[in-house]
Amino acid sequence: MRIQPECIPCILRQALETCKIATEEESKWEEALQKVAYSLSKTTFDNVTPLEVSHNAQRIVRRVTGVSDPYEDLKKRSNRKAMRTYSNLKKRVSDSEDTFYTATKIAIAGNVIDVGPGHEFEIKETIENVLGREFSINHFDFFKREVKNADKIFYLGDNAGEIVFDRIFLEELPGKEITFFVRNSPILNDVTIKEVKSVGLDQLSEIKKIKTEKQDSRLDGITEDFFDKLKNADVVISKGQGNYEAFSGIDANIFYLLMVKCSLVAESLERKEGDIIIKAARY
Amino acid sequence: MRIQPECIPCILRQALETCKIATEEESKWEEALQKVAYSLSKTTFDNVTPLEVSHNAQRIVRRVTGVSDPYEDLKKRSNRKAMRTYSNLKKRVSDSEDTFYTATKIAIAGNVIDVGPGHEFEIKETIENVLGREFSINHFDFFKREVKNADKIFYLGDNAGEIVFDRIFLEELPGKEITFFVRNSPILNDVTIKEVKSVGLDQLSEIKKIKTEKQDSRLDGITEDFFDKLKNADVVISKGQGNYEAFSGIDANIFYLLMVKCSLVAESLERKEGDIIIKAARY
Repeated sequence: MRIQPECIPCILRQALETCKIATEEESKWEEALQKVAYSLSKTTFDNVTPLEVSHNAQRIVRRVTGVSDPYEDLKKRSNRKAMRTYSNLKKRVSDSEDTFYTATKIAIAGNVIDVGPGHEFEIKETIENVLGREFSINHFDFFKREVKNADKIFYLGDNAGEIVFDRIFLEELPGKEITFFVRNSPILNDVTIKEVKSVGLDQLSEIKKIKTEKQDSRLDGITEDFFDKLKNADVVISKGQGNYEAFSGIDANIFYLLMVKCSLVAESLERKEGDIIIKAARY
Repeated sequence: MRIQPECIPCILRQALETCKIATEEESKWEEALQKVAYSLSKTTFDNVTPLEVSHNAQRIVRRVTGVSDPYEDLKKRSNRKAMRTYSNLKKRVSDSEDTFYTATKIAIAGNVIDVGPGHEFEIKETIENVLGREFSINHFDFFKREVKNADKIFYLGDNAGEIVFDRIFLEELPGKEITFFVRNSPILNDVTIKEVKSVGLDQLSEIKKIKTEKQDSRLDGITEDFFDKLKNADVVISKGQGNYEAFSGIDANIFYLLMVKCSLVAESLERKEGDIIIKAARY
């Protein structure tokens, strides 16, 4: 998905939020905002995804505030909160008629929860809500068939907290060779290797970073090589909007599992905000 | 009120909204966004109000799109809509126990409605709602006394549509020498001389522009001379948030009539969003 004009104010707003999380020094917020605004003034709207521009804005914030991972603490807390619901949810899966379906729904629920300040109570409510809802784009049967038949599965991770629910899903796939991909560098509450290891995902899968162009330090662009890798995987499971923005349009056996959280993604998917989606790129 | 970091993404978002109203050419939106972002990257946070920075952003949008007053049509429609409720509201005032109080409440209701896509039905509902609500800061008695005793009144106008309700208020002040101030140049749906004349306010008051520094073309700063004028007026009535942002902190006999519409103004007034306010600077 190419960046849209609407993304520009939104990326600036996100940058300010990150500043506030990183430091209480308002002069740093001001300096970072000025620098992010300057960098946004150079944004070209061709061949660039929202994620790339956001990455760059977040990098500026990290540099100005001197905080290498502003969401580190928030991510830890999200993982801990989610882990406290783990055994209940495992039981929910094993008690269900179609364990694969329930586990898929729980993985999507993780995306609905996003990190957030939610308490365990709200997490449980959200799970129940998602379990009771229909997919607005529903390629579940095709998804199930493709996953069951696959040997090698790529899983593109999204947020902290959410990965606990990803783990519940991945535990339903014994015997598969799973590679779990995380961001190259910290951006918002997206997971890095650290968070993924802390919830034990390294026991279930090989953890790798999404490969980005070293030479293009400006935009943290995803490498052609990585796109090729995706094309050759048996199945790619992509969680969340950020990955949808970055990888939609690629001709690979990708399945997008997400909740629609912004009007532009809604437009791109021809659905509305709040909808839950399981969409096959090759359906 | 000095500009806050939170204003920067907000001003960029407003600029994009104005682009969309001005033209359907997306390349113009992109160009304007880049230029506004560049200009925001130069924002200093000392001695500058949100209104000034917003003015500048809006000026860039007008220049890039080539549309000298993007909200012209919207302003016309707002005035027409509001005028259709005029005679009913006049009756509402004359039937009321305290006509001055009712007319003041109606002037505030105009600020609550803001331009917007509201139908006459919604306008009536909003008026009833505001008439039934308490002021969250209530210097009404002092306001009434000062206005009754004043000879010369300055009225700082706000939006199109709203000015019809300002007219109803001003009609309750026969014999006073009223000067109605409007913006120097078009910004959002704020009134200029044109809109004010079209609802007949020139019959009730002298219309003047808020004087701005010609030499500081960058920021459209309000002149020291104009601030002095305000200090010497018997009473200044200031409508809306934009004027509050620009004039709060001035030691003049100003009364701010507004609804709180953003978290920073809420913080500055120690009240919450949605509250309606009648606040005396010299209480």
